[in-house]
Amino acid sequence: MKDLIEEINQFRDERNWRQFHNSKDLALSLSLEASELLENFQWVSSEKAVAENRENIKDELADVFIYGLMMADDLDIDMREAISDKLKKNAVKYPVKDDDPSH
Amino acid sequence: MKDLIEEINQFRDERNWRQFHNSKDLALSLSLEASELLENFQWVSSEKAVAENRENIKDELADVFIYGLMMADDLDIDMREAISDKLKKNAVKYPVKDDDPSH
Amino acid sequence: MKDLIEEINQFRDERNWRQFHNSKDLALSLSLEASELLENFQWVSSEKAVAENRENIKDELADVFIYGLMMADDLDIDMREAISDKLKKNAVKYPVKDDDPSH
Amino acid sequence: MKDLIEEINQFRDERNWRQFHNSKDLALSLSLEASELLENFQWVSSEKAVAENRENIKDELADVFIYGLMMADDLDIDMREAISDKLKKNAVKYPVKDDDPSH
Repeated sequence: MKDLIEEINQFRDERNWRQFHNSKDLALSLSLEASELLENFQWVSSEKAVAENRENIKDELADVFIYGLMMADDLDIDMREAISDKLKKNAVKYPVKDDDPSH
Repeated sequence: MKDLIEEINQFRDERNWRQFHNSKDLALSLSLEASELLENFQWVSSEKAVAENRENIKDELADVFIYGLMMADDLDIDMREAISDKLKKNAVKYPVKDDDPSH
Repeated sequence: MKDLIEEINQFRDERNWRQFHNSKDLALSLSLEASELLENFQWVSSEKAVAENRENIKDELADVFIYGLMMADDLDIDMREAISDKLKKNAVKYPVKDDDPSH
Repeated sequence: MKDLIEEINQFRDERNWRQFHNSKDLALSLSLEASELLENFQWVSSEKAVAENRENIKDELADVFIYGLMMADDLDIDMREAISDKLKKNAVKYPVKDDDPSH
């Protein structure tokens, strides 16, 4: 993801935006973008939302990732490692059941 | 990110969870994880939150990415491309000012 | 609050909107309005947000209450009672400290 | 709602919490409670959520209202008036259709 982070950092440095980018406001902004993503599904079924709003879903999902990558970069978090570590924690929390045919 | 997506897909297939993973509930879940991330900053300054909750911030940020990557995979969205495309749209929406010394 | 609930119900019945108003989508909509409220505080201090956006804060807060009252009415929840009961639960969860001068 | 506001203010004054209650953190907290409300509907149908989680839905909805009433009180907003005004604005934004049989 390094090339993406570089692209994102260039974007915010060209606009001198890093001065506003404390982690609290980045977390708040990520939450707002997650809501804009969710808004695509308001009052409609999942299928209808995807059929009608796929392009906007893609854009809002990208905004979520952009804020997430900004935050990770500021806090020196390696997202690849963070995701892999969290999947291991989730696997302990939600063990695969022994009688699960997929196991 | 392909290896991450494979790791995530293995996680949900081992638990037979894909049956629950319609896009509407994934968007809803991503929004809930974004709130759990934001909760680290409730009532405190950005600095204090980062100093005290960095590990939890990392975990919640990872959960946001995990749901985001699930959703992208289900909708055949290439996140690398989606992020790069969205940065270009944002650049048009927020042009670098001519008198901006960083320009 | 009964007169408000009547006003709200008249509003949605005139538009035939009750068919869309399942509780899941009302909860989702309330959450989206809470984000629009929060958006007034994005990138700025609390004081600046209140000074500049008080009218919009009032409107978004009203939308949160409108969805909340719709939901309560559909589920036969008396909000006055619900709030009073929850304050009692919160009081047990967060007891007033003995050495608290306000006690 | 005046008696509710008095009850809420007594609750926070007994705990000396008003010092933390700037509007930005109240809006953030209201948004977190809205997510806890929404969490009751994660992965399940609206009907199933209501059947299984009605008590928790009531509690989380109450928390949303409590934060909303705190915020309104701090900003000298009369919620009864704010809601009534907003319904009038929404009525202009979403006019009742002429051919609407309910009209």
